Amino acid sequence: MASTDPQESVQELSPLPKVLVPKIPPSFCIIGEEPFTSTKFQYLKAYESPLPLDQFLATHAHSVKAILSTASAPVTADLLQLLPAVRLVVTTSAGLNQIDLPECRRRGIAVANVATVYSADVADLAVGLLIDVLRKISASNRYVKQGNWPTRGDYPLGSKLGGKRVGIVGLGNIGYEVAKRLEAFGCCISYNSRKKKPYVSYPFYENVCELAANCDALIICCGLTDQTRHLINKEVLSALGKKGVIVNIGRGPIIDEKEMVRFLMEGKIAGAGLDVFENEPDVAKEFFALDNVVLSPHCAVFTPESVKDLSELVVGNLEAFFSNKPLLSEYVDE
Amino acid sequence: MASTDPQESVQELSPLPKVLVPKIPPSFCIIGEEPFTSTKFQYLKAYESPLPLDQFLATHAHSVKAILSTASAPVTADLLQLLPAVRLVVTTSAGLNQIDLPECRRRGIAVANVATVYSADVADLAVGLLIDVLRKISASNRYVKQGNWPTRGDYPLGSKLGGKRVGIVGLGNIGYEVAKRLEAFGCCISYNSRKKKPYVSYPFYENVCELAANCDALIICCGLTDQTRHLINKEVLSALGKKGVIVNIGRGPIIDEKEMVRFLMEGKIAGAGLDVFENEPDVAKEFFALDNVVLSPHCAVFTPESVKDLSELVVGNLEAFFSNKPLLSEYVDE
Repeated sequence: MASTDPQESVQELSPLPKVLVPKIPPSFCIIGEEPFTSTKFQYLKAYESPLPLDQFLATHAHSVKAILSTASAPVTADLLQLLPAVRLVVTTSAGLNQIDLPECRRRGIAVANVATVYSADVADLAVGLLIDVLRKISASNRYVKQGNWPTRGDYPLGSKLGGKRVGIVGLGNIGYEVAKRLEAFGCCISYNSRKKKPYVSYPFYENVCELAANCDALIICCGLTDQTRHLINKEVLSALGKKGVIVNIGRGPIIDEKEMVRFLMEGKIAGAGLDVFENEPDVAKEFFALDNVVLSPHCAVFTPESVKDLSELVVGNLEAFFSNKPLLSEYVDE
Repeated sequence: MASTDPQESVQELSPLPKVLVPKIPPSFCIIGEEPFTSTKFQYLKAYESPLPLDQFLATHAHSVKAILSTASAPVTADLLQLLPAVRLVVTTSAGLNQIDLPECRRRGIAVANVATVYSADVADLAVGLLIDVLRKISASNRYVKQGNWPTRGDYPLGSKLGGKRVGIVGLGNIGYEVAKRLEAFGCCISYNSRKKKPYVSYPFYENVCELAANCDALIICCGLTDQTRHLINKEVLSALGKKGVIVNIGRGPIIDEKEMVRFLMEGKIAGAGLDVFENEPDVAKEFFALDNVVLSPHCAVFTPESVKDLSELVVGNLEAFFSNKPLLSEYVDE
């Protein structure tokens, strides 16, 4: 189908291989688009076209060789159906849950993930949230800034990090970075994962409930899958207990949020540090009044420094692909 | 001089050696007095006596063998003059600036400090404050809790810890614990101290201004002395520069607070995390409105867990002293 838009025609005529960008990646907004560009390929930015998406896709159906996917731009079987020439999906999101991986595999489409680009930032925020909840940093900051210290005296003390038994739920790159940091604080690490990792000596719990029962804090570091949705349910929260703290930097739906709200409000767990929520950006209002809950607007993965690293990885993957070289960070399903 | 108070007389008659407690230690309030007690000595609690302090001291002048000092109970030359039998000062405070150390030395009075009891907690809070300022945890928590996320969109991104050049001012126990933790985050550590430490490989700067000029963040971990008062002045803050962050878990007067307020308000440094202030508990009100400043009510040293450790150390030092054994944590001036 020939394009009716002059700009579309120019894009179509360029000899460079085409990469579809369905929605503008947040990373383009953070450090600009320039670090993501290359002389070896060309972006087809659906979000800049006046055409409706399906028409835009139809126009470029046979020229799109790769897709740059973001968390909010799902790569579905329907989308892939429309783009028969696609052989690569590169994602800028830490999770892959927006990509239909079985369909990619079926069609022989490779997937390049963000590798460890975000791991350090996510781990830093996870540790920051844990320290904040245990040592009451945000809450006492508010207390001092409201002028309460001279009139109402000392703020209630927090709790020590050293010796705390911290359970990592999902010991991938991010979980491992969290564990490494918390070891420096004298925390005792154990973990739950799909399978026992042969290369780590931390105690492994096959059952997340058992992990929770043996921990003072849980840090949710796994991805969202059908298996992990509401993995942290009433039973796990009960096992964690009223002195237990939970930190979530994975994905909101991994925790049954309604149950967690109830546990927090009834003092059945001690606190929470949350970067992700079931229904972002709408956060359960019950959290707002709880001093033992620290909320972060899903920003764990991002700093300008890591987005710069991401741009190099994205460009590197696309250039490698179009030069028939191995991808820098090919996702391989275990 | 004979006591006129019956309770005083009972205390005086006990055969146990006497330890003067001029003011109630905060640690007694946190975990109770019981963990600090012993069958080997007896506390003389001036704060519980109806007598004025000088009269109380006169009553017990010759029986007081040791003093339990706190941050707010100075051990001055005048006090020691009144208590000629004192041979030991045990402190519950991290700093020793309230104790007249030269006078103790002159009188042959030993000083037992808190050793490393508080180091981990202080270091944890220092790192927590640094992560908070760099990754904007308290500020974005407030943003989310005020319901701004759905209506006003994403909160401005923070900055990465990895690769940050962090300068430790004062590489004692606490400074070393901070450095150890920040290494796990990929920070590049350097330091300023009274003298170069032979046992560490971090770059040493003899001059704190030069350290600041070569760092993205300064963490103040030194004690307060005549030499460190206003050590962090206009010149050091200028050298740190407008992208620089400062964390203070030492003592308030180490920083020229008026200058720091000015630098923060004029955007000449990027942020601050402060547990200590020049005039506690009165905090400069200019800080209250600054989102890039995180305030903590001088609670870095304390968690219930570390106070328990402290009680064991205090009792251990006093029991050792009264049994003519070596102190567990004798302070030795370098």
